[in-house]
Amino acid sequence: MIDETGTVTVHGTVADGFEAVRAEFAAFVATERADYEGQLTAYVHGRRVVDLWAGQPDGDSLYGVFSSTKGAAHLVVARLVQDGVLELDREVAYYWPEFAAEGKGAVTLRELITHRAGLIGTDAGFTEEELADDRVIAERLATQRPFWRPGSAFGYHAFSIGALTGEVVRRATGRTLQEVYEERVRAPYGLDLFLGLPPEHERRFRTVLPMTPTPAQQAELDAVPRGPHTLSSIAFNNQVPDPGELTDFPNSPAVRASGQASAGGIASARGLAGMYAAAISMVDGRPPLLKPDTIAEVGQIHSLGFDLVARDRRAFGLGFQATAENLYPFLGAGTFGHSGAGGSQAFADPRSGLAYGYTRRRMAFPGGAAPENEGLVRAVHTAALAS
Amino acid sequence: MIDETGTVTVHGTVADGFEAVRAEFAAFVATERADYEGQLTAYVHGRRVVDLWAGQPDGDSLYGVFSSTKGAAHLVVARLVQDGVLELDREVAYYWPEFAAEGKGAVTLRELITHRAGLIGTDAGFTEEELADDRVIAERLATQRPFWRPGSAFGYHAFSIGALTGEVVRRATGRTLQEVYEERVRAPYGLDLFLGLPPEHERRFRTVLPMTPTPAQQAELDAVPRGPHTLSSIAFNNQVPDPGELTDFPNSPAVRASGQASAGGIASARGLAGMYAAAISMVDGRPPLLKPDTIAEVGQIHSLGFDLVARDRRAFGLGFQATAENLYPFLGAGTFGHSGAGGSQAFADPRSGLAYGYTRRRMAFPGGAAPENEGLVRAVHTAALAS
Amino acid sequence: MIDETGTVTVHGTVADGFEAVRAEFAAFVATERADYEGQLTAYVHGRRVVDLWAGQPDGDSLYGVFSSTKGAAHLVVARLVQDGVLELDREVAYYWPEFAAEGKGAVTLRELITHRAGLIGTDAGFTEEELADDRVIAERLATQRPFWRPGSAFGYHAFSIGALTGEVVRRATGRTLQEVYEERVRAPYGLDLFLGLPPEHERRFRTVLPMTPTPAQQAELDAVPRGPHTLSSIAFNNQVPDPGELTDFPNSPAVRASGQASAGGIASARGLAGMYAAAISMVDGRPPLLKPDTIAEVGQIHSLGFDLVARDRRAFGLGFQATAENLYPFLGAGTFGHSGAGGSQAFADPRSGLAYGYTRRRMAFPGGAAPENEGLVRAVHTAALAS
Repeated sequence: MIDETGTVTVHGTVADGFEAVRAEFAAFVATERADYEGQLTAYVHGRRVVDLWAGQPDGDSLYGVFSSTKGAAHLVVARLVQDGVLELDREVAYYWPEFAAEGKGAVTLRELITHRAGLIGTDAGFTEEELADDRVIAERLATQRPFWRPGSAFGYHAFSIGALTGEVVRRATGRTLQEVYEERVRAPYGLDLFLGLPPEHERRFRTVLPMTPTPAQQAELDAVPRGPHTLSSIAFNNQVPDPGELTDFPNSPAVRASGQASAGGIASARGLAGMYAAAISMVDGRPPLLKPDTIAEVGQIHSLGFDLVARDRRAFGLGFQATAENLYPFLGAGTFGHSGAGGSQAFADPRSGLAYGYTRRRMAFPGGAAPENEGLVRAVHTAALAS
Repeated sequence: MIDETGTVTVHGTVADGFEAVRAEFAAFVATERADYEGQLTAYVHGRRVVDLWAGQPDGDSLYGVFSSTKGAAHLVVARLVQDGVLELDREVAYYWPEFAAEGKGAVTLRELITHRAGLIGTDAGFTEEELADDRVIAERLATQRPFWRPGSAFGYHAFSIGALTGEVVRRATGRTLQEVYEERVRAPYGLDLFLGLPPEHERRFRTVLPMTPTPAQQAELDAVPRGPHTLSSIAFNNQVPDPGELTDFPNSPAVRASGQASAGGIASARGLAGMYAAAISMVDGRPPLLKPDTIAEVGQIHSLGFDLVARDRRAFGLGFQATAENLYPFLGAGTFGHSGAGGSQAFADPRSGLAYGYTRRRMAFPGGAAPENEGLVRAVHTAALAS
Repeated sequence: MIDETGTVTVHGTVADGFEAVRAEFAAFVATERADYEGQLTAYVHGRRVVDLWAGQPDGDSLYGVFSSTKGAAHLVVARLVQDGVLELDREVAYYWPEFAAEGKGAVTLRELITHRAGLIGTDAGFTEEELADDRVIAERLATQRPFWRPGSAFGYHAFSIGALTGEVVRRATGRTLQEVYEERVRAPYGLDLFLGLPPEHERRFRTVLPMTPTPAQQAELDAVPRGPHTLSSIAFNNQVPDPGELTDFPNSPAVRASGQASAGGIASARGLAGMYAAAISMVDGRPPLLKPDTIAEVGQIHSLGFDLVARDRRAFGLGFQATAENLYPFLGAGTFGHSGAGGSQAFADPRSGLAYGYTRRRMAFPGGAAPENEGLVRAVHTAALAS
C-alpha cells in the first residue's frame, strides 16, 4: 500500500508567525518513510498556535506515548501537593505504611518522585499481565530492597514510578491516580490524553510500529552492553525469562484499559500540548491548573547527574523531566515535561508560555524522544519568543 | 598605531631560579597581537619571585578582573569566619531574616557560599545600574525562589554571590564587605586590588577590550546553545530586553566606584598575587591573614560536579574556586583562588607556598581564565617546587 | 631463559559448559610475553567451574593482589555488621574517640567505608616502613583534617581505607582486622588469600614484576598530570621526598608479613574466587558467610560520580567496588568486589551466583584491573548464565 519513498502530506494549521514551524515539520516529514504518521501541537500562553499532522486524515488518531504518561501522572501529584493533600517532605510510609519495609521508612515523597528511592523494579520481575497493573507493581515494590542506597544516587524508574506515586495518591485520596486524573484534568478540558482508554475511543488508537534501524543504527544498538540482571534490565523488566518487546506495551488492550501510570497513556499531540497548556496557562477561560509556586517547584531540578538506569546524564524535577537541562538547553529554566520511548515529547516552558506536544506512530532510533523534536522544539520556541 | 604582528617587550624581574617563567611569558607574548597588555606576578612563601609585564611602561596599570573579585570578597568572609563573627553552618536567615522567603529558611552560609543556594539571579533581571549595586541585588534575591532545589545541585552565581555573602557581612558587622575588605585587607598591605576604585587611581585603569575571535573561534562561540531564559542567561543577566556586553561591565564608572563584589574589582597582577600571598604567608613581617585551619577549610572541595550555569564540571571551595581541580591538576590539593572573565587568574597553593596573579587587558577566547595561564602556572609552580 | 615471543601453556580444568573460558584465556595468553604468569578461577553457586593457570607448574603460586586486599578487609566488616558488632550509621568516633579530631566527629562508619571521609593520606606522608603498618596509618589519620568536605564528594582511599576500617574493627572487637579475617574467613575455608603471609608460604610468593609499556603506552602514562601535592599523590603517598615504586609494595617482606589491609594481601586466583564464593554461596557444606540482606547492602551503590583521586567516574558499595557499574556493565546489579593495581580482579555477582578471581605477576598497562579481565569476565559470565 505504501512505498519506501515518502510523499506524506502535512495537514493542519499554524497561527500567524508560526509558519516556520510548518516548514520545519514538512521538511522533516519529507525525509521519513512513506508510512510516517505524526502530530505536532503547541500553545503559547493558552492559545493553540500550532496544530499539524501527517499520515492520517484528521489529526485525531491516538498513539501510545509511553513515558510521556508520567507527565500526566505527576500533574496529578503536583495538583494534590498544591491542594495540601500530599506533602512532599513526608515519608512515603506515612501514607503507605507497608512501604517502610527493607529500610525504606525514611524515604520521602520528594525522594521517591525524583527517582532517588532505588525502586526501579523487583528481584523477580513481572509478567506482562502484572506490568499492566499499578496495584500489583506497588504491592511488590513495597517489600523490595532498594537497588542503591536511597539518597546516594538516582536512576530512571521506567515502569515503576507511576505505580509508586500512584499508590501514594490512592492511600491519601481513596481514589486511583487514574480516577483523579480523569476527573480533575482530562474530562474538564476534554483532553485526548487518556490514562485508561475508554472502549469508545479504541477505534482511534493506532498500534505502535517497531523501529526500523539502518544497519549502522542496528550496530549501534547492539553495542550497548546488556545483561539480564543489570539495573537497566531490572528497570525495563528484561530480567524475566521471556521479556516482551517494549514496542508492544501499549499495543496490549489490558495496558490501554488500565492506563498504567508510568507508560500506559494513550494520546494525541493535541492532548499532550493541551494538558501542559492547562497546567501553566489560562485556557478557554479556566485558570491554570498549577499556581506559580507549584509551577516553579515541579520544574526545579532535584536530581542531576549520572542516571544509573539510563547510563547517561539526566535531570529530573518532581516526577517530570527537566527538559531544558536534558535535551534542549535553549529552553527556559524550569521547563518541565516528559518524553516517551515511542518518540513522543511534551513539556511546558513557563517562561515563554510554551506548551508542546509531539507524537508519532513508529518508534524512532535510538529510543526516547525522537530526534526530530530538536528542530521542531527550536522552531516553535523561536516563534513563541517572537510572538 | 599598532599593527597586527606583535613585538611586545616583556619587562620586569624574576628571582633566581624563575628564569623559565620569564621565558614562558615572553614566548606567549610573542604569539599575541601587538596591542597585548598583561601582567604576571608570583610569590613563594611571601617573597615576590616573579614580577613581569608587557605592553605598558611600568606594570602599574589596573585592569577589570571580573570574577577574580570573588577571591577578595571571600577572603573577607574567610577572615570573619576565622574571627568567629560568622559561622558557616548557621542559616543565612539568622543574619538576614528576609532571606528566609520562598523556602530558603534552612539554607546555611556554607551552602550559599558554595554556589548551592540556586540564587543565580532573579526572574525579572537587573538594569545595568542595579547590577552595579550589591545592595539592590541582595534585596531582590532575598525574595527570589531558588532556581533549583537547594542541596540538590550547584551552579555558578556569576553576578550574585558577592552581593549575597556581602549582605551577610553587612548584617553581621554593620559595615559593607567592601569597607571591611579595605580596612582589613587592602589598605594594610597596600594592595592594588580594589573593591571600589578611588578616584585618584582612575587614571591607572585601562578599559577592557573585547575578544577578537578568529572565524573558527567565533563559530565555536556561536554553537553554544543560547536562550533568553536559560539558567546561564539568568546568571549572566542576559534575560533582560537589552543586556549589556560583559566586556563593558568594569568599563562602567559606577561599577568601578562600587566595587561590586562579584565582578567589579579592579586590580593589577601584583594586587592579585599580593593578596593571596598575604592570605597564606608571612609578608613584610605581617603574619598570614588566614590560620592553617582556615586555609585548609576554604580550599576544601565543597561543590563538585556538573555546574548548572557553566554547563561543565566545576569544583568550589568556600567562595573560592578549587583551582587545581578545575584547571591545573598538577597544583596542590587545597589550592584556592578565582579566575575572571577577562582572562585573569589568581590563587594560592598552600602546599607549595605559591601565590599567583595574572591580568590582561583584552578578553581572551573562549572566556574565563585565559589559556596562557596553563603554561604560566606550570612554569611558576615548577620553579616554586625547586626553589 | 625466556624469550619475547610467548608460547605459554594454559593448564587446569573447566567444568562442562565453560570451555569458552579456557579458549578466551588461551587466546589472551598467546598475545602475552613469554614470561606471562597468571591464574583464573571461578565458582558458580559455590561450585568451582574454572581453574586455569599459565606460566607456572601447578597454579599454586601466590601474587601480590594490591587493592583486591580491600575485598577481604571489607568482608570482615560486612560480617561484623551482620553480626551486630558494628553499626554502619554510628559515628566512627563512637568506636574510636580520637577520630573526632579536626571536625570528623559526625563522620559515620558508612561514610568512612564508602570513601567519603576525605582521609586519603596525611599532610606529611608516610615512610615505607610506616605504610606497611595499619596501626601507624590509623593513628596519623585520626588527627588529619579531611582533604574535602566529608559528604560533598568521594575519592579512592588507596592506602588508607583498610587501616581506617581496620582500626574500627580493632576498637570494637579487641582484635585486629587481620586476626578476625584469619579466624573467621581464611582458615575455615583454607583460602589462599592472606592478610599477613605466614613464613611457611613465603616460598610460594612470586615477586611483582614492573609494567613494560610500549612507547605509545609510556607516552600515555607520561601525559597524566602529576604534582607532588595533588590529591592523587597524597592518596598514593607520592608527596614524600623519595616515594617507593608501587610495584614494590608487596615485594616488601614487612608488607607481606603485616598483611596491610588496603594493599598488602597475597593471594592466588583460587583464594580470591574462593572467598567471594564463600561470601555468597554454600561451599563444601558451609552456609554463605553473608546473608541475603547483607549481600544486598554491601553491593548497593553508595558513592557514584567523579572520584577525586582516581580522577574518573567510579562507583563504590560498602568498602567494595560496584564492579558492574565501574567496569563490566553486563554483570548483575549488586555485584561487589575489588580489583588491584597489579592487574588482579575479583568479585561476586550474586544474581548469577558467579564468584571470580584473577591474578597475574607482571603489572598491566595502564594500572588497575588488567584489560584481559574484560574478555575473561564476559566469557565466564556468559557460561555461568547458561549453566
